[in-house]
Amino acid sequence: MNAQYDAEGNLRHLLTLQGMSAPMLQELLARAEQFAPARSEPLPEYRLLAGATVVNLMCEPSTRTRASFELAARRLGATVLEFDVSNSSQSKGETLLDTVLTLEAMRCDIFVIRTGDTGALAKVAEQVDPRVAIVNAGEGNVSHPTQGLLDLMTIRRHHPDVSALTVTIVGDIRHSRVARSAVDALQVLGVGELRLCGPHAMLPVPDQFAGCQRFTDIDEAVSGAHVVMGLRIQRERMRSDEMPEADEYFRDYGLTDARLAHAAPNVIVMHPGPVNRGLEMAPELVEDPRSTVREQVANGVAVRMAVLERVWKTLRLDRGAVHV
Amino acid sequence: MNAQYDAEGNLRHLLTLQGMSAPMLQELLARAEQFAPARSEPLPEYRLLAGATVVNLMCEPSTRTRASFELAARRLGATVLEFDVSNSSQSKGETLLDTVLTLEAMRCDIFVIRTGDTGALAKVAEQVDPRVAIVNAGEGNVSHPTQGLLDLMTIRRHHPDVSALTVTIVGDIRHSRVARSAVDALQVLGVGELRLCGPHAMLPVPDQFAGCQRFTDIDEAVSGAHVVMGLRIQRERMRSDEMPEADEYFRDYGLTDARLAHAAPNVIVMHPGPVNRGLEMAPELVEDPRSTVREQVANGVAVRMAVLERVWKTLRLDRGAVHV
Amino acid sequence: MNAQYDAEGNLRHLLTLQGMSAPMLQELLARAEQFAPARSEPLPEYRLLAGATVVNLMCEPSTRTRASFELAARRLGATVLEFDVSNSSQSKGETLLDTVLTLEAMRCDIFVIRTGDTGALAKVAEQVDPRVAIVNAGEGNVSHPTQGLLDLMTIRRHHPDVSALTVTIVGDIRHSRVARSAVDALQVLGVGELRLCGPHAMLPVPDQFAGCQRFTDIDEAVSGAHVVMGLRIQRERMRSDEMPEADEYFRDYGLTDARLAHAAPNVIVMHPGPVNRGLEMAPELVEDPRSTVREQVANGVAVRMAVLERVWKTLRLDRGAVHV
Repeated sequence: MNAQYDAEGNLRHLLTLQGMSAPMLQELLARAEQFAPARSEPLPEYRLLAGATVVNLMCEPSTRTRASFELAARRLGATVLEFDVSNSSQSKGETLLDTVLTLEAMRCDIFVIRTGDTGALAKVAEQVDPRVAIVNAGEGNVSHPTQGLLDLMTIRRHHPDVSALTVTIVGDIRHSRVARSAVDALQVLGVGELRLCGPHAMLPVPDQFAGCQRFTDIDEAVSGAHVVMGLRIQRERMRSDEMPEADEYFRDYGLTDARLAHAAPNVIVMHPGPVNRGLEMAPELVEDPRSTVREQVANGVAVRMAVLERVWKTLRLDRGAVHV
Repeated sequence: MNAQYDAEGNLRHLLTLQGMSAPMLQELLARAEQFAPARSEPLPEYRLLAGATVVNLMCEPSTRTRASFELAARRLGATVLEFDVSNSSQSKGETLLDTVLTLEAMRCDIFVIRTGDTGALAKVAEQVDPRVAIVNAGEGNVSHPTQGLLDLMTIRRHHPDVSALTVTIVGDIRHSRVARSAVDALQVLGVGELRLCGPHAMLPVPDQFAGCQRFTDIDEAVSGAHVVMGLRIQRERMRSDEMPEADEYFRDYGLTDARLAHAAPNVIVMHPGPVNRGLEMAPELVEDPRSTVREQVANGVAVRMAVLERVWKTLRLDRGAVHV
Repeated sequence: MNAQYDAEGNLRHLLTLQGMSAPMLQELLARAEQFAPARSEPLPEYRLLAGATVVNLMCEPSTRTRASFELAARRLGATVLEFDVSNSSQSKGETLLDTVLTLEAMRCDIFVIRTGDTGALAKVAEQVDPRVAIVNAGEGNVSHPTQGLLDLMTIRRHHPDVSALTVTIVGDIRHSRVARSAVDALQVLGVGELRLCGPHAMLPVPDQFAGCQRFTDIDEAVSGAHVVMGLRIQRERMRSDEMPEADEYFRDYGLTDARLAHAAPNVIVMHPGPVNRGLEMAPELVEDPRSTVREQVANGVAVRMAVLERVWKTLRLDRGAVHV
């Protein structure tokens, strides 16, 4: 996965967090902090991406991630093109690669892509012009690196020393790109202990998620945890026979006040959203002071700004721009 | 409905025109006039909403109103995010409130919302951050305040003294948020006489529309009127058994040259558009000098600019900005 | 078709290339060259359309052309409104003309329209305000003038002397607006020889495409040609009984390396895209050095910038602006 770095090791594409160096990840997070002023402060108007055209190319439904990337790009001064794939040339049989190469010919610079097709992004990244960057906005069930970054940013704001933490992820880990990218990011920074929890059918197969402990009992998994991350049950993507009974799932794996009593006193409760209230989490927990659901959303814009700025810098360096 | 004013009485949300003070309504209309230069004059480039992010969140189909708000916001220098609800998290079971709170976390400032769900906007307005404003772009069949404002702006341009006017509204008043907001606005300014006309099933139930006279005979209703406003028959929303026969409806309630002969000599003919030509109105009447159909559209952008500027000013005042 | 020029002969609307004067066409192409800097050079930020509102009004599916016009307009500094007709007032029975007149009342200046309805654009152009311009983005099967311009721009870059050229167009010419506008443009500049090639059912009826030779044998048609243009088989628009068998079509009319051996040595291979690889063209030919598929896309943005600038200049002249 060196495909995402240029010859000097700069981040050119963001395809995955797996194997990223700790300093690079820390630099992105540090920059994201600068893009996240307190709510009481005005948002500065940046021109850091002036002259860049960013394409939002979502081949799977997305509204939050799309909006987050769009705002990130526009607040940096980029021109943003929303490219609706459902109504597009792809329905005329064009491949993702053809679409990207066509928009590249129109001098689009950065492609933010969501796709269900695992491996497609690396293939596209290999074939594009050297002046073009690919940013992964969710790829099959393998990775969602900006989600991993925003999760890590959120964790570090509450628990700066990641090496001392116990992090528990609860839900359908087997099919979750959110879990994968969170684990990738946490492992880069040397997390203390990683626990995965869910019913047997939702736990990853043995050769996946190396270095993580598996639990089917949520009380054991949550015990002493500093971070508890619930995953979304993606009802809209599941076949009816895969769907857990809602009552049963909440009874066995729902996050509740009672369950959190056994976690560390300063535990935070995370969720990528949108929350199915009463399924993954007790309804009132979303607004609880321990919940970081909204903070994660806010941090999402900031990390995406940091990523877009970083790959644009790399493109301009590689183009030989004198001042970057 | 004091929910829409801040502690100092400034307009913070626009939820309804009902109960608005006459000076506030007049101030909005006066400002809208400044945003409506003659067609021969260029549009100034304003930066009054620079730094603001406006979300267009239409939970019901809308193209004209959406376009009108989008142009209003962009001509004031705002960043506008189109949030397509049909393809969104709401189809994942997320509520309107969750969607708004998520986008609020992304530092969106003003939410322009259309919804079929009566009461939803007030509920959202209660729960949002103090730095966020809600603007009603059509709510169920109860209100559409920017439509009321643009109708009043149009009326006053032709008939400045509202207290001397007889205004007749023709059509499906019972289900019309356009009629409700027009009546609200006219009553704030102390309109002379308000007449509602339509077949019995389309007239409002007795406890609604206080202070208005009801007519089933259009010739009586139009007699001496200074303003005749036709409402759109919303064929796309009606069940087939509710739909009037087109021929019959036009014969009994269609606006025609002959019928207008009994109105005041300087009568204007209004319609919120799009007109079903030959149903609510004789086809040639749309382009008639008495028709204000296009003028209403033009005024719509101007009143929306005035509303957006006003709520943004309130937000900035409440944020403690020194200069507003 | 003088409807597209103002009283001084300036281009006000772009409806067709048919009958355009050679100097006007050459001026547009020369200007487009200035809007197409080499890939290694940065894109300048233009403000030539500052203050203008451009509406993209696509009544037929379009993603490439829509994106191309959107980028062209935004890179010139215009405000661009995407108007989604599928979800619009037109589904409420509003006509294209009503939609345009409504948006005109909102002070939109330039309408980029794609429609399947032949003749609709001329009708709209006749009725709009003198301060409004219509630009054809594809009209039924009769014209697609910006495609014709980009094709000509591409041809001239490789073969500057059009009068010396043999140009062969292969495919479903009878239903192709791309072919029509390419032929229009080439004839304005006095092309040497024009050949149309396809199975009998795809060749134009006798009174159409005057001045072109017809071929059913592709080897004869390609022999000595300087330009070979494949047309897209529009599978998504064809009835199943009209659809050629893919194998058979590629065998008889597919562009291949072997077939190009009989063309001129410096032949270029064009296609409007998206290419059905292995149907109109051998898969590897798309990336071949003789292929101009991507270059056509790039030139598309440039010619659209030239057209938008030109009609905006005319509108401003007609508005009596002192400096244009």
